Amino acid sequence: MTIDRTKILLDTTKRLLRRGATAHLHKIVNKTHAADLAAAFQFLTSSEQRAVFDHIEDVEQKAMLFSELDEGLLLAFIEDMPAEQIAEILEHMPNDDVADLLGKLSDDRAKTLLDLMTREGSEEVEGLLGYDAETAGGIMLPDFIALKEETTAGEAIKALQRDYADTEMPFYLYVVNDHDNLVGVISLRQLVVVPPDTTLKSIMTTDVVSVQTDTDQEEVAKIVARYNILAVPVVDENNTLVGIVTVDDVVDIIREEATEDILKMAGAGEGFAESQSLLKNTRSRLPWLLASWVGGVIAFVVVAHFQGSLSRLIYLAAFIPAIMAMSGNIGTQSSTIVVRGLATGRLSVKQIGEVVLKELATGLLLGLVYGLLLGLVVQWRYEMWPFAMTVGFAVVGSMTVAALAGSLLPMVFARIHIDPAVATGPFVTTFVDVAGVFLYFQIATWLLGA
Amino acid sequence: MTIDRTKILLDTTKRLLRRGATAHLHKIVNKTHAADLAAAFQFLTSSEQRAVFDHIEDVEQKAMLFSELDEGLLLAFIEDMPAEQIAEILEHMPNDDVADLLGKLSDDRAKTLLDLMTREGSEEVEGLLGYDAETAGGIMLPDFIALKEETTAGEAIKALQRDYADTEMPFYLYVVNDHDNLVGVISLRQLVVVPPDTTLKSIMTTDVVSVQTDTDQEEVAKIVARYNILAVPVVDENNTLVGIVTVDDVVDIIREEATEDILKMAGAGEGFAESQSLLKNTRSRLPWLLASWVGGVIAFVVVAHFQGSLSRLIYLAAFIPAIMAMSGNIGTQSSTIVVRGLATGRLSVKQIGEVVLKELATGLLLGLVYGLLLGLVVQWRYEMWPFAMTVGFAVVGSMTVAALAGSLLPMVFARIHIDPAVATGPFVTTFVDVAGVFLYFQIATWLLGA
Repeated sequence: MTIDRTKILLDTTKRLLRRGATAHLHKIVNKTHAADLAAAFQFLTSSEQRAVFDHIEDVEQKAMLFSELDEGLLLAFIEDMPAEQIAEILEHMPNDDVADLLGKLSDDRAKTLLDLMTREGSEEVEGLLGYDAETAGGIMLPDFIALKEETTAGEAIKALQRDYADTEMPFYLYVVNDHDNLVGVISLRQLVVVPPDTTLKSIMTTDVVSVQTDTDQEEVAKIVARYNILAVPVVDENNTLVGIVTVDDVVDIIREEATEDILKMAGAGEGFAESQSLLKNTRSRLPWLLASWVGGVIAFVVVAHFQGSLSRLIYLAAFIPAIMAMSGNIGTQSSTIVVRGLATGRLSVKQIGEVVLKELATGLLLGLVYGLLLGLVVQWRYEMWPFAMTVGFAVVGSMTVAALAGSLLPMVFARIHIDPAVATGPFVTTFVDVAGVFLYFQIATWLLGA
Repeated sequence: MTIDRTKILLDTTKRLLRRGATAHLHKIVNKTHAADLAAAFQFLTSSEQRAVFDHIEDVEQKAMLFSELDEGLLLAFIEDMPAEQIAEILEHMPNDDVADLLGKLSDDRAKTLLDLMTREGSEEVEGLLGYDAETAGGIMLPDFIALKEETTAGEAIKALQRDYADTEMPFYLYVVNDHDNLVGVISLRQLVVVPPDTTLKSIMTTDVVSVQTDTDQEEVAKIVARYNILAVPVVDENNTLVGIVTVDDVVDIIREEATEDILKMAGAGEGFAESQSLLKNTRSRLPWLLASWVGGVIAFVVVAHFQGSLSRLIYLAAFIPAIMAMSGNIGTQSSTIVVRGLATGRLSVKQIGEVVLKELATGLLLGLVYGLLLGLVVQWRYEMWPFAMTVGFAVVGSMTVAALAGSLLPMVFARIHIDPAVATGPFVTTFVDVAGVFLYFQIATWLLGA
């Protein structure tokens, strides 16, 4: 449905632009949700983007579009825009989004834009720019509702109407003591169902889940997901409340982190390659391929080392692809299961023995199945038992070793605090390729004579 | 932090259980958040789980623990539990979670439990059981706040206190007409900031994003993520409001779907293999490996076909691993980028030409780099230009073809409505393995003589 909706919007927009049906286009652009415009934007050419954008009347709508756009797209879009126009839109965006954007611009350009913004907004944004973009500090909203313990429910509702009309997600009210330390939380729902003279202190929950400004955003997402909360308060080193991270940002983080993990595991760069230039795309994929290249060269040395066996039985070579494919495949399965299990918290490094043993057993079982099948093919074709046994045992051995390496390596990386999603792929692939070829020729030497 | 907290809780629990420090354990279990207990539960043996569970006093806490536990774990845990005890806990769980659980039990057992539950709860659950578990109907909560257009803000707040005290997420109030059709939405926040005699009709937003009962849960998650809303209303075919899907469930869906996609792409089954039995795990990974096996057998036929070239230059075999590793790797990169791009909506099947062309160019560029490097290794070792060129060109050709297949196949699968995450892996791997080996020997035949 969302995809369909984007397609319809896109087709209509392109048709109206082609026909120059300005009035009609103007109407559509201004009644469409900014999130839908953003989804369609990436499929428009830059001149079409500009034309659509110029039709938007409301600066709030422009600001929402900016907030929803992909970072790369937004950066390209504002490149030639006058600073005054950008600054006016930034004023209407949530401060965390502004800080994200400015953090990606050159220092000069960021400073120009900050200078053009009103004092209040720019100060908040500057505060956020001090935090690492991928921590709670970097993603928090500095607007939240903080009231004292002695405030009554009735006063709180009045304060909500008077002082917090612009707060983005006023579903929780935080309670602070005289030093602005976070001491409790109340949901808006609790507030409306108690008598107006009840003090916040008497109804607040004191066991508040909070995060520090330097907590990693992935950790923040896990906390929001685990406790099913709509926002988590962020405190600084003095336990002073400085912001909140809301669930809608958490949803985005979870999607982004999952995508990053998937791409990292495949060695395909961390960001979305399709929005990058050809050269950048190529460069980000070079290093991972280097691991395969090195593995290939080592495998060549191994094969060359066994030239004796190979020259006597030239058909040995014909089963190299099968052995590599089977062991590579099961190695990827094992490492994917473990890397994802660690990322989602379903697996802990403490379970290393149990997990590796189970993968080893799985590898052995699957190796027996496919080793037998491939051995039978060899026997049927060549009618030569030692050769069939060589291929069969090589499949069993290489698949078992691949399942072992695929599960053990990410566990070890996690234990020594190296991101298993990045490190596992190249190491497992290279190791599995070389080990498979080596085992095959070693078994051949034993069974078929040196 | 969450991981650390789980570890501390786990260590403490195990220590207290060993020592038989019942009183202390009792205290800890009852003051710990059910979500934390659930996280620790999977690392306990079943007798430890039972001991911890028996310490929980509050049935609400037991119900929250059930809701938070992994499905497989929960099913194992309740297997030997008396039906009366389970039914009592189910009464306190959200109805969507109860429906999920009952859907996984045998019909007999589900019926027994439903009969033991009070009428009101069991009727709601039975309603939910009529929907597919992975649709909006299967994940929605049937408790929501629905009021008529003429209701005033003051009356609405009274209704909230009186009739909706148990509603789980009362952040939006939905407005319905006399036929219970959804006509508008108001946030709780809007409600408290307007004068009490304002009618809902005059302040409600009429442009309500909603989903149908049969909308796929992944689509529901996309909508909640796109519009940054905390809950999306679910309507039936008559536009009658029947439930809501809340953002906390969406967070879980996004995590699960990402995990499923990652595991599917690696052919490692759809669920979490580490909680499955060894045989189930092995069985779920068999089919994908079959693709590699078939690829390996076809590659063997190809190599056997080129026995002439191979017997003349036995060292050709030594570079099979390098060519397979390089082309397999880039094929995985390309397909991962495209599959994930399609899953997140960043890529559309309409962009097929553009995407494939870009991957083709990337494959060619990377192929030139690594082909040159590998060719130089060959020349340095064997001082034989035609051989070096054979290996070099084979790398260029097989990597280009792999990038082409890796990007084209998922696009084609998506267009003909086959899940690209499932289908891409086996087809790309098999094709790339065979094509690489074929190209290599074909080029060898040309350059080194037939």
